[in-house]
Amino acid sequence: MRALVFDRNLEFRGDYPNPVAAAGESIVRVGIAGVCGTDLEIARGYMQYRGVPGHEFAGRVVESKNSSILGKRVVGEINAGCGRCATCASGLGRHCPERTVLGILGRDGAFAEFLRLPDNNLIVIPDSIPDEVAVFTEPVAAAYEIFEQVHLSRNQTIAVIGDGRLGAIVAMALKGEKYQPLVAGHHREKLARLAKLGFDTAEESSLRDKFEVVIDCSGSGSGFRRAAEIVRPRGKIILKSTAAAAAEINLAPIVVNEITVIGSRCGRFEPALDALAAGRIDPRPLVDGIFPLDEGVKAFEAAKHPLNFKILLRAP
Amino acid sequence: MRALVFDRNLEFRGDYPNPVAAAGESIVRVGIAGVCGTDLEIARGYMQYRGVPGHEFAGRVVESKNSSILGKRVVGEINAGCGRCATCASGLGRHCPERTVLGILGRDGAFAEFLRLPDNNLIVIPDSIPDEVAVFTEPVAAAYEIFEQVHLSRNQTIAVIGDGRLGAIVAMALKGEKYQPLVAGHHREKLARLAKLGFDTAEESSLRDKFEVVIDCSGSGSGFRRAAEIVRPRGKIILKSTAAAAAEINLAPIVVNEITVIGSRCGRFEPALDALAAGRIDPRPLVDGIFPLDEGVKAFEAAKHPLNFKILLRAP
Repeated sequence: MRALVFDRNLEFRGDYPNPVAAAGESIVRVGIAGVCGTDLEIARGYMQYRGVPGHEFAGRVVESKNSSILGKRVVGEINAGCGRCATCASGLGRHCPERTVLGILGRDGAFAEFLRLPDNNLIVIPDSIPDEVAVFTEPVAAAYEIFEQVHLSRNQTIAVIGDGRLGAIVAMALKGEKYQPLVAGHHREKLARLAKLGFDTAEESSLRDKFEVVIDCSGSGSGFRRAAEIVRPRGKIILKSTAAAAAEINLAPIVVNEITVIGSRCGRFEPALDALAAGRIDPRPLVDGIFPLDEGVKAFEAAKHPLNFKILLRAP
Repeated sequence: MRALVFDRNLEFRGDYPNPVAAAGESIVRVGIAGVCGTDLEIARGYMQYRGVPGHEFAGRVVESKNSSILGKRVVGEINAGCGRCATCASGLGRHCPERTVLGILGRDGAFAEFLRLPDNNLIVIPDSIPDEVAVFTEPVAAAYEIFEQVHLSRNQTIAVIGDGRLGAIVAMALKGEKYQPLVAGHHREKLARLAKLGFDTAEESSLRDKFEVVIDCSGSGSGFRRAAEIVRPRGKIILKSTAAAAAEINLAPIVVNEITVIGSRCGRFEPALDALAAGRIDPRPLVDGIFPLDEGVKAFEAAKHPLNFKILLRAP
């Protein structure tokens, strides 16, 4: 099949082997896929991943023993637990120590014509949601994970650090749930686009206020340092971004100000699909380009451009 | 008065000016004081503090307009808020942005014959608690702060990283409240002493299990890294130690494993005095030396020795 493959370099191949479904798995023909910051990190060496990247997709089940999904449009939860350990038994298969993760850890991903996932990971897309909206289910679910982990009060002051694709999606989820975040970043043009979408925005360096909650979507260690500066004593920092690189960090302010730092990764898909189906979030204004799969390397370059939010890949 | 003074160097002086009580403050003659890791950090430059260090003490009120404390044995909460701001009004004077902190920030400390503190900071020591136990009130309160911030279940697995004075006090507080922590450290002799006091102990490098709660009392960035390695997905790291130095830290595991990191500093004194009065904690086995005030520099050297737990200073 055709696929984008990372093996020290990222390249498009026309002859990559088709996935073979294991027991309990189905094969999905990918319709559309999204390039995420984690994909760019993988291309820089994060997770030492080798294979097909990509974990945001919408597609159609073309091979399955499960008649309830065969032929249906689906999105897929990206973590596949072993199904046998205590973590899986407790319903936290996303944290199974033996898990594979689509396009991130031990399992080829979505930048290809086909992918395989356990039937249990696949969720049928409601008819009201087009593919180019459904492809955002995974990042929207990651944003909604915040609400599963932390109680946020509507009268708390909330800052989102990072005007990139993750910051924008997190801000959209917050707004969709009636919070009023301030989005802070470095890119005037992107902040202006977010302001046009109805968000309060600020140049990050200009922030002087202290916030009760700061959500770091910056993708860099400097974002965490900045979060520690602008969070109130006894406040919360929610860490959404992963970065391959370690950073020089002084934890003393976290102790002195008794800050709670909450690491937050993937979320359940249901709340995200609900929010997308109800129109509480419409991420389409963030799409800055749709590339065919065989131009995937170009798509990665476009995704790296600091003024682009979201780049999608469409299987031809 | 006689005092230990830090001003680029630590030195004993016989001619340091006596403290003068401001409105609402009393003067305390220090009976006994404890050397803490923060004091050692201050002597390395932490907080850019200049003046008399020391914030753990028991003493007697010798000058006060408040008859309920005059002449009484007291301990003192170390943070003095402005009393006027929103943080103070909310009862969190410990986090007042204008606060002074005894022996740490803008207020001479307890390694002297006399100190001054607001009347509201002074708490009368119950008769049943001798001075050499009461002097532990501040670090025990810091340990009890954990229970004010986080709910810990008695059937959670808890590891304390650090076999130093802070780790030992935190472990004692946990045991006093019927938790069963494992204390992990690098110093075989100290671990053996803690084992004799009834604690489960382990060489830190030998740890293979994962814990639901890890309390970092190591005083170094490497403790945090180790904590991130041995905490379970969705677990908690409680950060107790402050260090002057930044450390190279990769936050990706905090995000990927959705760890919650809770910075924890000073605590209210009442629960600590209750625990000491009831004998749920008896820190006296941790005392490894009592020095007269004029040998304070020697006392700091002793406190730095890796095999010593607690060094006390007694005003003559």
